[in-house]
Amino acid sequence: MNLSGTTVALDGLGVENGFDVLEAGIRLAATSEGIGLRVFGPASELDLADLNRVEVIDSTDQITNEDDPVPSVRSRPDASIVRAVADVAAGNSDAVVSLGSTGATMAASTFGLKRSRGVKRPALAAQVPLPGRTVVFLDVGANVDVRAQHLVQFAWLGAAFAKSVLGVERPEVGLLSVGEEAGKGREEVVEAHAALTGADEFEFVGNVEGRDLPAGVADVIVTDGFTGNVVLKALEGTVKTVVGAISEAARKNPVSAVGGLMMKPALGGLRRDLHPDTTGGAILLGLRKTAVVGHGSSGAEGVANAIRVAARAAAVDAPGLTEEMLHRVGANRGSIGSEPGV
Amino acid sequence: MNLSGTTVALDGLGVENGFDVLEAGIRLAATSEGIGLRVFGPASELDLADLNRVEVIDSTDQITNEDDPVPSVRSRPDASIVRAVADVAAGNSDAVVSLGSTGATMAASTFGLKRSRGVKRPALAAQVPLPGRTVVFLDVGANVDVRAQHLVQFAWLGAAFAKSVLGVERPEVGLLSVGEEAGKGREEVVEAHAALTGADEFEFVGNVEGRDLPAGVADVIVTDGFTGNVVLKALEGTVKTVVGAISEAARKNPVSAVGGLMMKPALGGLRRDLHPDTTGGAILLGLRKTAVVGHGSSGAEGVANAIRVAARAAAVDAPGLTEEMLHRVGANRGSIGSEPGV
Repeated sequence: MNLSGTTVALDGLGVENGFDVLEAGIRLAATSEGIGLRVFGPASELDLADLNRVEVIDSTDQITNEDDPVPSVRSRPDASIVRAVADVAAGNSDAVVSLGSTGATMAASTFGLKRSRGVKRPALAAQVPLPGRTVVFLDVGANVDVRAQHLVQFAWLGAAFAKSVLGVERPEVGLLSVGEEAGKGREEVVEAHAALTGADEFEFVGNVEGRDLPAGVADVIVTDGFTGNVVLKALEGTVKTVVGAISEAARKNPVSAVGGLMMKPALGGLRRDLHPDTTGGAILLGLRKTAVVGHGSSGAEGVANAIRVAARAAAVDAPGLTEEMLHRVGANRGSIGSEPGV
Repeated sequence: MNLSGTTVALDGLGVENGFDVLEAGIRLAATSEGIGLRVFGPASELDLADLNRVEVIDSTDQITNEDDPVPSVRSRPDASIVRAVADVAAGNSDAVVSLGSTGATMAASTFGLKRSRGVKRPALAAQVPLPGRTVVFLDVGANVDVRAQHLVQFAWLGAAFAKSVLGVERPEVGLLSVGEEAGKGREEVVEAHAALTGADEFEFVGNVEGRDLPAGVADVIVTDGFTGNVVLKALEGTVKTVVGAISEAARKNPVSAVGGLMMKPALGGLRRDLHPDTTGGAILLGLRKTAVVGHGSSGAEGVANAIRVAARAAAVDAPGLTEEMLHRVGANRGSIGSEPGV
């Protein structure tokens, strides 16, 4: 995919590993794919004048994880994330990327980029890298309470993303619940199951259970933002605990210590495979433009990957394709966005 | 702890690995601790006549995972799980253990053993074995929808179990949510957080996130039965995926293949440490007697551990201590079971 026609607005504040890492990430994305960048960060810290199509717009006001997102976004027009979003809204950039506060990025993007026509609730989608395939998992934190129709929309948002950006022709979509049977789970899950059955632009594989997520049984797995957030973090934490316990076991036992040393390259590969940085972070779906939130702890590769995902989504016009798909489905099936009482 | 005065009613149907494994598990528990057993299973398959205080009561009607639990339990008084529960209710046994359908065990126990005074909703608690400590995680499937007061009760139920059965003097209790701040999460979680703050018989450590569960940051972690079920299964699945990916990586790479071979004992130990069988399955808390559901896939050690947990809970009268604690708290704080509208 040629990304040299795209421009990404980058919030240049919030990378935990410092401006050197940020700069290295920007260089990677700009030189390997020719992505244009408008960086809203401190001009004194970022020396990027040698790069084509990379501009630094001096910004020093950072909304951090300690700030309350909504009031901060509303009251601080000079904050780097607010300016980066405004740059997209003004048409100077095609997508926004932040490595800073997820809450601030969600709030700024939802206000500044607007929801796509027909979308009730934008959702935050993580790309979970698993041996075998990458699973689009949503919602991982935008909506802690949902109704059935929101879950149904998340399925369409996730499927449209898998199709347009990841190139999965006919995505398999699963609904997270406490059992495989259609009647298992909360009321809204049971309702969503019924509404998704027979969907014709993706393959609805029915309910999937917690164990099916790490097994990678579907391209898209749908849940509410409370469950999704907790499960995603538990998954990341478990990988860390298991890899840590293996290293510990290897260190303690002289025989397996040698084995552990020899395993190191394989373990490193696995850690990289399962590390969220590999896929460039989470994407806010359901807005008219693309917004991506990378991990604050990203290295240069993580920063570059977050920029690449955003550029790719912009290049294929993922928001436009998603809106079209939702519209087509809403017209054909009447099951989305048309329930009473909302 | 001397368990030779306890008698456990064992549902003898539902062990996936066959009656030989069940028998071996029974022998382990009976001979190592002298636990008495009344086994409701097929007399033709179980040869236990040589054991003291172990009796087989011929039962062949099994409620399986395919059966709808509530109607099955109500209509099949001869089912092994229904008879085992009735045996406890009649005072012949002190606790019930099943390796079969979790749903059937929950239904039979709730009907047959009755809730403890003041308990609104019994909860299913898993003991999650982690490097460092065992975490009591509840609810993992009994209640897919909860109110704040149910979460508060789960905290007390879990703390009472950790105290009386696991011997943790002052259990640390965490509330699972999407952020550490008191205001983060669903409405019922925010309310429960407020109600738990200042609890004086355990240490309320506040909200914990998904990543904190595998890290083992508390002795008891509380959530609703939907989230808990999904997270527990995701955790088990992730361990399996990671261990599988390590074996795969080791096989593919000739250098790390040797390393992998040398790591094998360490990996085996880890798999055992993190395997749910290690702790003997899940416990239904909030009933007047103890009910334990072991994994259907248990080996002999898993069967024995499920029996041991039940015997231990009965020996210390965990249900009685729990009821006492709830009563004391309800009287002192007025925050449990006294909210309006329930």
